[in-house]
Amino acid sequence: MSKSATEYKYNIALDAMGGDYAPAETVSGALEACSNKDTHVLLVGDEDKLLRLLPANIPTNLTIIPSHDVIYETEHPIDAMKSKPNASILVSANMVRQGLADAYVSMGSTGAAMAAGVVSLGTLPGVERPALGGPFLGLSPNTVLVDLGTSVDNRPSQLVNYGVLGVAFSKIFCNISNPRVGLLSVGSEDSKGNRQTREAHSLLSKSNLNFIGNVEGIDIPKDKADVIVCDGFVGNILMKFTEGLGQAVIEYLGKYLDASKGEASDSLIQELNKLTNFAEHFGGAPLLGLNGICVVGHGRSRSRAIMLAIEMAKTAIEKQFVTVMTEELSKVNGHNLVSDGENNDG
Amino acid sequence: MSKSATEYKYNIALDAMGGDYAPAETVSGALEACSNKDTHVLLVGDEDKLLRLLPANIPTNLTIIPSHDVIYETEHPIDAMKSKPNASILVSANMVRQGLADAYVSMGSTGAAMAAGVVSLGTLPGVERPALGGPFLGLSPNTVLVDLGTSVDNRPSQLVNYGVLGVAFSKIFCNISNPRVGLLSVGSEDSKGNRQTREAHSLLSKSNLNFIGNVEGIDIPKDKADVIVCDGFVGNILMKFTEGLGQAVIEYLGKYLDASKGEASDSLIQELNKLTNFAEHFGGAPLLGLNGICVVGHGRSRSRAIMLAIEMAKTAIEKQFVTVMTEELSKVNGHNLVSDGENNDG
Repeated sequence: MSKSATEYKYNIALDAMGGDYAPAETVSGALEACSNKDTHVLLVGDEDKLLRLLPANIPTNLTIIPSHDVIYETEHPIDAMKSKPNASILVSANMVRQGLADAYVSMGSTGAAMAAGVVSLGTLPGVERPALGGPFLGLSPNTVLVDLGTSVDNRPSQLVNYGVLGVAFSKIFCNISNPRVGLLSVGSEDSKGNRQTREAHSLLSKSNLNFIGNVEGIDIPKDKADVIVCDGFVGNILMKFTEGLGQAVIEYLGKYLDASKGEASDSLIQELNKLTNFAEHFGGAPLLGLNGICVVGHGRSRSRAIMLAIEMAKTAIEKQFVTVMTEELSKVNGHNLVSDGENNDG
Repeated sequence: MSKSATEYKYNIALDAMGGDYAPAETVSGALEACSNKDTHVLLVGDEDKLLRLLPANIPTNLTIIPSHDVIYETEHPIDAMKSKPNASILVSANMVRQGLADAYVSMGSTGAAMAAGVVSLGTLPGVERPALGGPFLGLSPNTVLVDLGTSVDNRPSQLVNYGVLGVAFSKIFCNISNPRVGLLSVGSEDSKGNRQTREAHSLLSKSNLNFIGNVEGIDIPKDKADVIVCDGFVGNILMKFTEGLGQAVIEYLGKYLDASKGEASDSLIQELNKLTNFAEHFGGAPLLGLNGICVVGHGRSRSRAIMLAIEMAKTAIEKQFVTVMTEELSKVNGHNLVSDGENNDG
């Protein structure tokens, strides 16, 4: 590596090989990010391929870090990490472990990004495995949902941690000073829910979070809570449903507008797209509870989304996201969380 | 009662006291329904109040059935049934038990409608408690989601029953002859899911349903499956989220259109409303697995939705919905479903 990490304000390892449109779009995203001269992008990937995509005059704040192999969405992350020790995502996470980068950014696979982070950097005290959370609805850009699908069958105490990590997210990325935490359930009354959420409700009530109780599906787009906590199974379905719904509404309206001879404008369609399209708005989501900064973006990200994911990583670096997560966790872990009941597994 | 049940093709007991706008809107809905002379509405409620709302010339195909008390959404259904034995929902269900009505229709509470049905009519063989299912998205009017929230922490075998009952729904109300059944999960691969869905996947694969495997949130609006099976916790959140999203999108667009000086027309807003508004489109949903016909509508239903719920009950009567559910259940119950694993409670 030709540049010192201390030379730049932000040193970002970008997994150039991750995502559906890699490396063409990751290279474009990296070049966009390099237009900010305080940003140093460590572009991790197949050197030959990257050189073919890069301009003859490579920006001085872009460094190629060679890697071999890619871990794909369809592979089991742990197995793949063993058989591909020099895969781009592992090399990216290692850049952070070695202090050569302040954060790593990948468009997937999420599982590999998580596994690489846990192995290279570890998790914060009290966190079993990282979670993924953030706003998922363009219409509610400051409503954070945790977990978006990193694990299922969560223990009630994990849901409490999701609340804590969501609070750190909300403070750093949404600038909300005392985020309201809601528990996603099937009724507003305390007693409503399944076994997992009823137990989690009790734990959250005893925590020092700003817990406002249960919120229902109808409340999600209504700014009732800043942080909404749910099992990763539910969060993943909600996130993907929103994506599918956005696509389907826009397709439907396209036909409707054709039939009605353009009563509405294309700008309206663009508005609707913004309301539901996760990737275009937020770029990605940081791994919550990791002892380091990793932003994971949507597999279908194009260069603009990749650039936004890099921007998100820069915010996390600047605002000391890991320190804030650690502080928030210590507040709740100081409290004694009672036992978890039977719902378990993780 | 002045009219014989055999005099009319459809005899519908309508809980006039159920729903947020009862009895004014239930009376209006009943009058609309009575414009069909093959339909006899037994309007169950507070006689004085009903008489004040009805015209002097009550249609000959409308009969007032007096009741006392109402069971509200906030009450525990079983407790309330004990303390209010003549509540409108109980009297309505009893009309069916006594053979004086072919179906009962209520705008809620859902819990009370279910409890009254179970006590009065019982459940079909193999069904522990009724479920609620149906299309929940105007955009996908033929995609049936079961369960929409009648119970949580479902055993995997209950999810199989949801598939069976959803098939009966799809055949009767969507006219689909061999409905494709999908299991809502967090990945398309068989192994993806939580403990409940992985076990349910195995049971569904062994059943004689037309099981197409896991479907993801993104697939819901894309006509990938005709019947989508999920835990009531997930279904309820999805249904209510859709409702909230529809409201929020329309509110947002209203502001957008104001700002852009009416680039799009009101008709577009109406289109969007149709795409997401459950109550206006479908009127209600039948209780699945009940040994009798009950259609439960949305608490916020107005007269048109109430009339549609009555129409749905009429379809169920005409197409022998209970017989079809019984036949479908017998096909699967004939198969031996293996044990359910630990995830339990119902």
